[in-house]
Amino acid sequence: MLSFVGLGLYDERSVPVDGREKIREADAVFAEFYTSELVAATVTDLESYHDVSIKVRDRAGVEQDPAPILDAAESGTAVFLTAGDPTVSTTHVDLRLRAHERGLDTQIVHAPTVQTAASGLTGLQNYRFGKATTIPFPWAHGGDGVPQSVIETIEDNLERGLHTIAYLDIKAESDDLLSGSEAASLLATHWRGDMLGVVVGQAGSPDPVVVADRVDELAEDTFGPAPHLLIIPGDLHPIERDALEAFANAPSSLLE
Amino acid sequence: MLSFVGLGLYDERSVPVDGREKIREADAVFAEFYTSELVAATVTDLESYHDVSIKVRDRAGVEQDPAPILDAAESGTAVFLTAGDPTVSTTHVDLRLRAHERGLDTQIVHAPTVQTAASGLTGLQNYRFGKATTIPFPWAHGGDGVPQSVIETIEDNLERGLHTIAYLDIKAESDDLLSGSEAASLLATHWRGDMLGVVVGQAGSPDPVVVADRVDELAEDTFGPAPHLLIIPGDLHPIERDALEAFANAPSSLLE
Repeated sequence: MLSFVGLGLYDERSVPVDGREKIREADAVFAEFYTSELVAATVTDLESYHDVSIKVRDRAGVEQDPAPILDAAESGTAVFLTAGDPTVSTTHVDLRLRAHERGLDTQIVHAPTVQTAASGLTGLQNYRFGKATTIPFPWAHGGDGVPQSVIETIEDNLERGLHTIAYLDIKAESDDLLSGSEAASLLATHWRGDMLGVVVGQAGSPDPVVVADRVDELAEDTFGPAPHLLIIPGDLHPIERDALEAFANAPSSLLE
Repeated sequence: MLSFVGLGLYDERSVPVDGREKIREADAVFAEFYTSELVAATVTDLESYHDVSIKVRDRAGVEQDPAPILDAAESGTAVFLTAGDPTVSTTHVDLRLRAHERGLDTQIVHAPTVQTAASGLTGLQNYRFGKATTIPFPWAHGGDGVPQSVIETIEDNLERGLHTIAYLDIKAESDDLLSGSEAASLLATHWRGDMLGVVVGQAGSPDPVVVADRVDELAEDTFGPAPHLLIIPGDLHPIERDALEAFANAPSSLLE
């Protein structure tokens, strides 16, 4: 049996209770932190909290060499941990398919994601978001600005009055996280800076950062430790406007 | 202090560990189950598991008369519980704004939602979903079919190759939940039945139901106890196709 367990967003206590039980009962516990990370818990914190030993796999150790994980799931119960929810990213669907091909049962313990938190913390309603996008480091996509596909996704959503979540690039190998101000600066420099944006940081923590302002103003601000998210709101419902003003200090002139 | 705590999807153990701690430490615990319900835990189960007394509020008791909740949050620590995540629905943003207007601190403990589970259980990738929609009971919107806005949202997403989550109506007052087969039947009768759909039931449970088929075939099937979700996939990435075949028994002829 291979169970995919989400650790949630913030620290070792963000995991659902049923996920914690699965971790404690497992014969083998694996984890990856290259798609996302916990803001306030190290692997050692997790090992000590759950009283287990955790084998951390890098991207190659999951995508090219998943055999140790699958072998453990064949001979006993194995748990595979990720920050956030375990199965919103393609990588882990691939691992689940490989387990299925070997005739292994799989199970998912869902956990909170930044997508959910983004909506809750900003007051922007989840059914008013369009397609999401990711803003990469310029050096990572070989260009020197913002990929045209990112701009097209945001424009397409804006035309329809929808909000856009922009996930920000993470390069686990070098521990590089694109910050909210860097992302805002990329948009302001290579596209436009005069629109409303919202940066969310430390989602899931007791003290999250939520700041709404013009994108070119966000580029000049700082938001504490990454990972961050950048949201470009579309048309605002009156209650969304009130929430951005109350909880994200949005300048009222930008909310017309 | 008013803390919004999500209970997650399935039973009393779907709550995040930090949410459980907040519930146990609270001076007063409120809950609502008119926007969503736990599949496998009653209020009594929750009270016994958390060793607290829970005051359940109906819609009027949250939206028109939130004073008891706000008073409790003023004189001590109050927790407000919902199934899923506590703040993806407008109602609770409104409650948070009212607390803010009274100068009270608020905090959110995020939890898994069906939106996240839908993506994880089907293998459909979260960044390939467009705007979501809700299919209401025909008698609830005063028409006798499917609102044009629902069809337009799905069509608009399909044109862009994007997936659509259709939430299904819930009338807590009368305990009526629109089932996946009823929703599929509405689409098949009043729009079209020849497209691919996926019904998800018991999300977050140890044994979720995930079935992919033509919408008019889904209309003839049953999926265990509601709440259910109906997803209309857009263009499929090869790994999404494999996942629908492996985990949702999609007929391969529908995946071309």
